[in-house]
Amino acid sequence: MKQKMDPWKSFEIKDYDKLMQQFGIDKINNVKIPKSHKYFTNGLVFGHKSLQTLFEAKKNKKSFAMMTGLMPSGKFHLGHKLVADLMIYFQSIGAECYVAVADIESYLTRDISLEEAKKVAIKEYLLNYIALGLKSTKLKFYFQSQGNKNYMNLSKFVSKETTMNELKDIYGELSPEKMISAFTQVADILHPQLKENGGPKPVVIPVGIDQLPHINLSRDIAKRMKEDYKFIPPSAIFLKLLPGLKGGKMSSSDPNSAIFLSDDEKTVKKKIKRALTGGRETVEEQRRLGAEPSKCMVFKYLYYFFEEDIKIREKRCKTGKLLCNECKKDLNDNVNDFLKKHKKALNAAKKNYKKFI
Amino acid sequence: MKQKMDPWKSFEIKDYDKLMQQFGIDKINNVKIPKSHKYFTNGLVFGHKSLQTLFEAKKNKKSFAMMTGLMPSGKFHLGHKLVADLMIYFQSIGAECYVAVADIESYLTRDISLEEAKKVAIKEYLLNYIALGLKSTKLKFYFQSQGNKNYMNLSKFVSKETTMNELKDIYGELSPEKMISAFTQVADILHPQLKENGGPKPVVIPVGIDQLPHINLSRDIAKRMKEDYKFIPPSAIFLKLLPGLKGGKMSSSDPNSAIFLSDDEKTVKKKIKRALTGGRETVEEQRRLGAEPSKCMVFKYLYYFFEEDIKIREKRCKTGKLLCNECKKDLNDNVNDFLKKHKKALNAAKKNYKKFI
Repeated sequence: MKQKMDPWKSFEIKDYDKLMQQFGIDKINNVKIPKSHKYFTNGLVFGHKSLQTLFEAKKNKKSFAMMTGLMPSGKFHLGHKLVADLMIYFQSIGAECYVAVADIESYLTRDISLEEAKKVAIKEYLLNYIALGLKSTKLKFYFQSQGNKNYMNLSKFVSKETTMNELKDIYGELSPEKMISAFTQVADILHPQLKENGGPKPVVIPVGIDQLPHINLSRDIAKRMKEDYKFIPPSAIFLKLLPGLKGGKMSSSDPNSAIFLSDDEKTVKKKIKRALTGGRETVEEQRRLGAEPSKCMVFKYLYYFFEEDIKIREKRCKTGKLLCNECKKDLNDNVNDFLKKHKKALNAAKKNYKKFI
Repeated sequence: MKQKMDPWKSFEIKDYDKLMQQFGIDKINNVKIPKSHKYFTNGLVFGHKSLQTLFEAKKNKKSFAMMTGLMPSGKFHLGHKLVADLMIYFQSIGAECYVAVADIESYLTRDISLEEAKKVAIKEYLLNYIALGLKSTKLKFYFQSQGNKNYMNLSKFVSKETTMNELKDIYGELSPEKMISAFTQVADILHPQLKENGGPKPVVIPVGIDQLPHINLSRDIAKRMKEDYKFIPPSAIFLKLLPGLKGGKMSSSDPNSAIFLSDDEKTVKKKIKRALTGGRETVEEQRRLGAEPSKCMVFKYLYYFFEEDIKIREKRCKTGKLLCNECKKDLNDNVNDFLKKHKKALNAAKKNYKKFI
């Protein structure tokens, strides 16, 4: 049976290869990436749908865009940084950037008021994006609840291009508010191609695999709309779900599972100290047997965020030359170095974020 | 089994009393109507929900409103005039008037473009409303596709206050586009009570009985919303479905079933000549047995639109003193007198409709 994905619940993926086969996701290493970003090579971006159309447009000096959304809840952590870095990568190679604050969705599915959503979106998300390098040129940072009429209407018109049965097939059982959230997301994904935004163009959506249903629905609907609404089926890149520091899920609601970009030095140290590693019971045993980097969150975080070449570390770990404390210290130094610089950038961002809205 | 109503399909009602019992509709003759309109006494308005709250507000010099929508398709006929006359009645007793052009709904359920909808709404509906007596003071004539952000957001937020099961119970099977249409209608019905429109107040919706599902859903949702969205459950008055000239349904798509307000004298005469009556096979038989006014469309139209006191005509008909040709001539004279005056009013409306939009 085909696995159903619920984009409103978190879940773990056991077998990415099987998943790709099941959902028609292509491997990322078949695409030639201009000025490639390390996330494309270290496995964090593991798959895509029609990403090449974007780079063809770039090559032919035509318009292309990146679109993403943020759920204005919780504190900004390293998992959010992943998506932000990719936004900034696409902006750096010339993409128009559309960033939606999903405040309609957070009202409908998480009971967050529009006012609260706005506060969190700016303080936790926009400021961090700017500090990480997002530029205000060719950027549209917007709130779902404040979109213009064509966008609002699009979020209703897309309902005509699908059926209840298809929605059930994509999402499983849907409540009315989740259906409205889904149609609003489809409008988010397609509206960079509205006439007022320059018409049809390749648009890439960097998403966690849990958002695949929205991508599939948007692609299907894009193919079916006609007359005034001509859309190229949107592209997507799929990101692995970043595991929590203790293994399992990373979640804003479990502070020890995630490093927040607002954490201070001490907090970071404490969290990393408690992180799940692939180490053995005793030092003696680890010296003798070596440890298991594939099970180690510290290793993963070093690889994903800080070290381009992880081979030497991996070998030293497996052969027992490296103890967990050393890796933890390395990760701790890296994270705190980064956070120190980031805090300065964040302070600068607080002064000029208004031109981004 | 409870009868389901589909507001997107036309149907006939056989037994109004049974219907009222089934759907909790109160009898209109229990309400004291200020400056009563004949539609309240001749049975065209046959029932209501909480209409008295409106007249209580009027008595206490508080705000109250009338809200209605129009489907921008087809030509304006006597059935549309019914609703228009009631709009104008409520405006005349001091109600704020909200009139929605259902262009989102006509796009979704009838494939009518927004441009086409706008043209039809103004030419066929607004001009006739004005000619019939609608004033521009305390009037908001608007297009669903051009509503402001709070209205647009409301049409999404209401989805949170219901479930798929409840929607199925009210509407039967629903397609996604009909669900969007329904939520948009709920927003139409509730938005006169938004803060920007003066906050909670009694609002009456004059509707054909086929629109009952939208009224019920709106009333249920109104009771459930909270915080920023406080609503008094909207009131409604229910109109009989005006039968077609040939009996059966009146429909824009069957020109002989309806008198359009744009019909010329000859066309009116031809249509009335062909109308269904309660007459007998031969003049001789009719003189002897009398005719059956309860089956006669000509009689109904005379009663509904032109004659306050129909008792003498009824008696003469039943006793064979009146022949069908005489009634047809009376209806024909009445309709053509009305249309002659109406055409003049329509020409005046063409000159000043812009201040209504």
